[in-house]
Amino acid sequence: MAYFSHHVFFCTNQREDGRQSCNQCGAADARAYVKQRCKELGLSGSGKARINTAGCLDRCELGPVVVVYPEGVWYTYVDWEDLDEIIEQHLIGGRVVERLLLDASPAPTD
Amino acid sequence: MAYFSHHVFFCTNQREDGRQSCNQCGAADARAYVKQRCKELGLSGSGKARINTAGCLDRCELGPVVVVYPEGVWYTYVDWEDLDEIIEQHLIGGRVVERLLLDASPAPTD
Repeated sequence: MAYFSHHVFFCTNQREDGRQSCNQCGAADARAYVKQRCKELGLSGSGKARINTAGCLDRCELGPVVVVYPEGVWYTYVDWEDLDEIIEQHLIGGRVVERLLLDASPAPTD
Repeated sequence: MAYFSHHVFFCTNQREDGRQSCNQCGAADARAYVKQRCKELGLSGSGKARINTAGCLDRCELGPVVVVYPEGVWYTYVDWEDLDEIIEQHLIGGRVVERLLLDASPAPTD
């Protein structure tokens, strides 16, 4: 059994050079929202969910991105409704939110 | 197949209230070292390893801590030798470093 049943990492990287980065899309606020909602819903703690910040997850062009482990499921999101759906469908229901899913396959190498 | 074969998260949290936190133990430097070594060894990139910073992983009393996904293996470390062993034995060899392992079971609830 995993220490956290769902360990969620929000990229909250902020680039200063003008290139696209997740925090320009409100990632820190998104993470704070999900963390707070999970607390309210009793989903947080060991054996349950942990909602973390992370540095650049290196998928900037698809951002804002979030990854859920141990499943290794990658999502993007736009608004609070998307985040609620990840909480309700994935973290509570255990089902992947297909419409927000990013390809989890490694990028092809040349 | 996972987007990253080993997605490594170093807690680099720095508390300002005097309580124990991973970055007081040099976590940011440790992460920078492992990131650089993985680059040098050709271990970095999609389909391979990613060495990330993360906010507080909520296991402060055992810190400094690092978690490797999708395996969900938790380690502590003291020095560069420990980090080299995690790189060589776990990231390259695919074997858990038993002597640095933290219990991955959820904490008992009252």
